[in-house]
Amino acid sequence: MTEPPVLLDRRSGVPLAVQLADGLRSSPVLRVGDRLPSTRQLASTLGVSRTVTAAAYDQLLAEGWLEGRRGVGSFVVGTPPAAPVDRRSRPDPTPSVAVDLRPGAPCLEVLDRAAWRRAWRAAGDEPPDVGWDPIGTPAFRTAVVEHLLRHRGLPADPDDVLGTSGTSAGVAEVARLLPPGSRVGVEDPGYGRAVGALLATGVTVVPLRVDHDGLVVDEVPAGLAAVYCTPAHQFPLGGRLPAARRVALVEWARAEGTLVLEDDYDGELRYDVAPLPLLASLAPDVVVHLGTTSKVLSPTLGVGWLVAPRPLRDRLVEARTATGTRPARAGQRVLAALAGHGDLSRHLRRLRRELAARRDLVRGAVADAGHRTVGDAAGAHLVVPLADRATEERVRADALAGGVAVDGLARHTTAAGGPAGLVVGWAAPTRAELVDALAVLTGALRGVRP
Amino acid sequence: MTEPPVLLDRRSGVPLAVQLADGLRSSPVLRVGDRLPSTRQLASTLGVSRTVTAAAYDQLLAEGWLEGRRGVGSFVVGTPPAAPVDRRSRPDPTPSVAVDLRPGAPCLEVLDRAAWRRAWRAAGDEPPDVGWDPIGTPAFRTAVVEHLLRHRGLPADPDDVLGTSGTSAGVAEVARLLPPGSRVGVEDPGYGRAVGALLATGVTVVPLRVDHDGLVVDEVPAGLAAVYCTPAHQFPLGGRLPAARRVALVEWARAEGTLVLEDDYDGELRYDVAPLPLLASLAPDVVVHLGTTSKVLSPTLGVGWLVAPRPLRDRLVEARTATGTRPARAGQRVLAALAGHGDLSRHLRRLRRELAARRDLVRGAVADAGHRTVGDAAGAHLVVPLADRATEERVRADALAGGVAVDGLARHTTAAGGPAGLVVGWAAPTRAELVDALAVLTGALRGVRP
Repeated sequence: MTEPPVLLDRRSGVPLAVQLADGLRSSPVLRVGDRLPSTRQLASTLGVSRTVTAAAYDQLLAEGWLEGRRGVGSFVVGTPPAAPVDRRSRPDPTPSVAVDLRPGAPCLEVLDRAAWRRAWRAAGDEPPDVGWDPIGTPAFRTAVVEHLLRHRGLPADPDDVLGTSGTSAGVAEVARLLPPGSRVGVEDPGYGRAVGALLATGVTVVPLRVDHDGLVVDEVPAGLAAVYCTPAHQFPLGGRLPAARRVALVEWARAEGTLVLEDDYDGELRYDVAPLPLLASLAPDVVVHLGTTSKVLSPTLGVGWLVAPRPLRDRLVEARTATGTRPARAGQRVLAALAGHGDLSRHLRRLRRELAARRDLVRGAVADAGHRTVGDAAGAHLVVPLADRATEERVRADALAGGVAVDGLARHTTAAGGPAGLVVGWAAPTRAELVDALAVLTGALRGVRP
Repeated sequence: MTEPPVLLDRRSGVPLAVQLADGLRSSPVLRVGDRLPSTRQLASTLGVSRTVTAAAYDQLLAEGWLEGRRGVGSFVVGTPPAAPVDRRSRPDPTPSVAVDLRPGAPCLEVLDRAAWRRAWRAAGDEPPDVGWDPIGTPAFRTAVVEHLLRHRGLPADPDDVLGTSGTSAGVAEVARLLPPGSRVGVEDPGYGRAVGALLATGVTVVPLRVDHDGLVVDEVPAGLAAVYCTPAHQFPLGGRLPAARRVALVEWARAEGTLVLEDDYDGELRYDVAPLPLLASLAPDVVVHLGTTSKVLSPTLGVGWLVAPRPLRDRLVEARTATGTRPARAGQRVLAALAGHGDLSRHLRRLRRELAARRDLVRGAVADAGHRTVGDAAGAHLVVPLADRATEERVRADALAGGVAVDGLARHTTAAGGPAGLVVGWAAPTRAELVDALAVLTGALRGVRP
């Protein structure tokens, strides 16, 4: 049992739990294998409430820095594994990040942990598999079909659904089947990992212009083998592709013989009106629909899906069979159990309520700082437009100095002259952390003109 | 509740449980969603023991055709998803297969289901992950390090270990980092899925000769970017690469600047002597070591690992980060829990005992039929050499007519003039099914000259 000396500053504005987690994480006396004092003990040592110590431990558990062993205590298992990589792939080192407002993380605060545990138990009660499965378990594909019908209005047959390891993995699989030398259009600004996945397959990527309504369809050039887009909630600008553009896109794709990759990013998370028809329901013959659980549940599952036109679906299965690759069934089992018990639908309802409320908090805070926001009432991020890239960098640096990490549009654009602005997410922190982080963010935004 | 009429032939030689499973699977009256009678009810209806009905249900559950809902009963959920694909990718349609003796499946009969369930429960008790993890959870990598040290004599640092989605996926990831136009050597006969994974990345595959000791190292040509091999138990011929060849291979690789991909196929499953030093322990600077849980536990987990030289490991992590691909953590959690409780080591001991005993059964049966076997005392398959490919086909067809599927060397060779013989596995069936299947197999082998 180690008693780590942690200094807490009650007047710093940073929540005590966040300070405590940071202090423990960077403590020079703690090593891998050390057992931490109980939350009760540590609370009494530091003179704080047990809520604070429990929240700090939860944070460290979630990061993978700490591991809880039932009835034995909490042990240091090391620094979060992703840290060194994130440092390299992200422009900023983030050693002092207290609250992370970058987009892409799930909202664990509203995840019903009892339901989560129940689903894992159910998954473990099933007999282990013997055979090879390049498609996805029947229960998983049935769960996806029900999800797509209920939450996305897409009628699909379980045989049309293929499990994936996530959206980018699905994009890469499809791209590998395109003819050599293919050109693939991508939204710019857009989702960098999908672009990276495309580039790694050897295709040539063609940036496509995006406005506040999403992809500018009538500017898409001819000669593309495929177009990758996020029509439900464009990442990162936040527009929803209007119905007329949807129709124009799929008609154009049919005429051109172009495949449309519909990344249903934030598709489940609309707060105002009903979502527009999916591209896949308008034109199942030319659209590959892609979804994932990483952002609405947790990346732990490593589970996504795609619905593809039958000939392409068959070629994908053939490629998986020939190469020995297939999505892992462990996460599929957990998802199927969550869906089967109705917990997934309940979770999505709760998640929508919480994220909508948080969005109001963020918009209010940004408006207080005299800035406007861009993006539909959807998802878990918005954009705060700024005058130029230098301003973007300055606000990000100021926020980071206050312990708050936000993203900038520069990271999501290939064009040097693209729009400038912050990309602010609100799913990852607790609601309390978000409130504190927004105080830091508004401080940083007040310093610059809109 | 449906009472399916199933005809059982007590004198056919096919176990009653197998007949019953076949009958249910092909029953014209059962549809998706139907509930089956309880094992007790059905046993009394058919006048067989409950062991028979329970075994048939277990079989159908394992195939994914049936789903058990706790306290409610067993429901038809559809045909096994892999079936249509297997039919296409394998030379034979196998509608009448009662016992599958093709290699590559795990042995579920010795898997402690209580330990399996416990591991899933423990995995679900951990908090869900928030962040991106291209490496693998700390607990998983620690478990792999302990496994490699204890069972494979390989000292590795957790930072050297990367989780994978399986061996072929790891092979493909490494191959994608090779320079364009690279040539990669593969054993011939060899493991077809790894060859398929290599081909899909665009490298040129160069077949390398194999003898009863594995890869014929001194015939490997110059100019290869990498060599893929199975030194622990060559697939499918069953040799173990001798120490002198191991040293020669890695020295040659160092001199040539060639990467060696060491697929540790069956590495945990030796029944006679201690395994020879891994290529990765002889030359960690030029060897990528690859392992998986699909064959020693179950493909459900979708979990493998690789240990690579640090610069390559860093490039793999960069590629994963850029492309948004990473191994799923769900199965990693379950494996870490199994290892943490000591259940993995216990399972491997039990598995070795069972598979060694089954190997004796298979060798005895083949000897009774007047044939010899080839392959070390290891793993879960051996080869029965035959005069030519026509004989191989005839014996396979005869066995299949008796309900027993075995593999032939033709499926694992690119050379039309390669060796002929059966590839017989023994992990998938129960011990009782194996005994019955061997009677069929010896019958088929008696018909041909050795």
